[in-house]
Amino acid sequence: MTKQERAIRTRSRLVNSAADVFRRQGYERASLASISSQVGVSSGALHFHFENKAALASAVVLEASRALCRSASHIQRTQSPALQALIDTTHAVAELLRENVVVQAGYQLSVAGHGTGQPLRTKWQSHVARLIVEADREGMLRAGVPREDITASIVASTVGFELLGRDSRAWLSRGSLTGYWQVQLATLASYDALDRLLPAGTDSARIPPQGTLALAAAKS
Amino acid sequence: MTKQERAIRTRSRLVNSAADVFRRQGYERASLASISSQVGVSSGALHFHFENKAALASAVVLEASRALCRSASHIQRTQSPALQALIDTTHAVAELLRENVVVQAGYQLSVAGHGTGQPLRTKWQSHVARLIVEADREGMLRAGVPREDITASIVASTVGFELLGRDSRAWLSRGSLTGYWQVQLATLASYDALDRLLPAGTDSARIPPQGTLALAAAKS
Repeated sequence: MTKQERAIRTRSRLVNSAADVFRRQGYERASLASISSQVGVSSGALHFHFENKAALASAVVLEASRALCRSASHIQRTQSPALQALIDTTHAVAELLRENVVVQAGYQLSVAGHGTGQPLRTKWQSHVARLIVEADREGMLRAGVPREDITASIVASTVGFELLGRDSRAWLSRGSLTGYWQVQLATLASYDALDRLLPAGTDSARIPPQGTLALAAAKS
Repeated sequence: MTKQERAIRTRSRLVNSAADVFRRQGYERASLASISSQVGVSSGALHFHFENKAALASAVVLEASRALCRSASHIQRTQSPALQALIDTTHAVAELLRENVVVQAGYQLSVAGHGTGQPLRTKWQSHVARLIVEADREGMLRAGVPREDITASIVASTVGFELLGRDSRAWLSRGSLTGYWQVQLATLASYDALDRLLPAGTDSARIPPQGTLALAAAKS
């Protein structure tokens, strides 16, 4: 392994360790010493990569944002109707929030105001709004239900699922989200669309391992 | 004013000041000095009432819990159907979260693990679950929609509204919640019930001033 490869690897392990410590102890209480010692490097090595705690938090948020964008763009690429893409995205995000410590910590940090750029929750709101506009254009939404109320309702519930899932992972299970979508689609989806939508998500809602995605991106 | 009355008044002003400081700065960063100086009392006077920051946080959570229980029991006393009581309660809680700094701070502190006894969010979940069971018994719920999915969906969205409302009060407006209930009732409520329910809440959703309530409680 070259020196540069080793540096990249150490940096990535520091980001993972920081995510773990931030998630368990919160930003304020997290100490840089425990983040570096978990990785088995000196605090000097940590400071070579990150100026301070804020820089580490930003790196975690950025990593989380990338993972979320990767899964969202993978789903949009499958070209299912927008409403199905939205359902699939909520399943994919829930899976990331269940299993990926960087996404868990990054989301919590972003909500608490850490990280640079647009907060993850704001990005999520725009994403939902955009897909609802598309679903409307595709004729998949029930007539007479105000579109902004649909968007607000989905944003509020998904934000709630994320928050409740921090204490109890069951909220983020496939079953829990499938039940949610069954209830919601009964009001939101046009009668024609109802038969075509899968509340449990399509196969595209399963997140492929990162390597596969990178390969797919390289080919496209 | 007797010495005892003055002490009660000072204590109550300290709880309000603590709520304000906790809400703006968060628990970790809040300093006891700024809490006492906002009230114009010495830190000795603060310590006469509260042993430490944790005790102050518990007092804020307890005050918030009392305010929420007062409004919930006021609504149940009006004897409307359980589903209407639930709608009314969400409007009343949203009003408290919009306008009452102790409820805002108490809710946030409780979610972050401060305060003694059952967390406010757990109480809220039980309250929703109980009213949905009652609504089912009253025949107000649509056949074929699983009751636990209805409960989970309402809990998740209301938790989301609270969280989103911290940054942007519009989420907690009467209009926003009315839109939410219009969308939800279209799936949840039985066809018979739909005409009888008011998504904007009945008059009982308006919180009477505390004095009025105390009077009503004394009379009953």
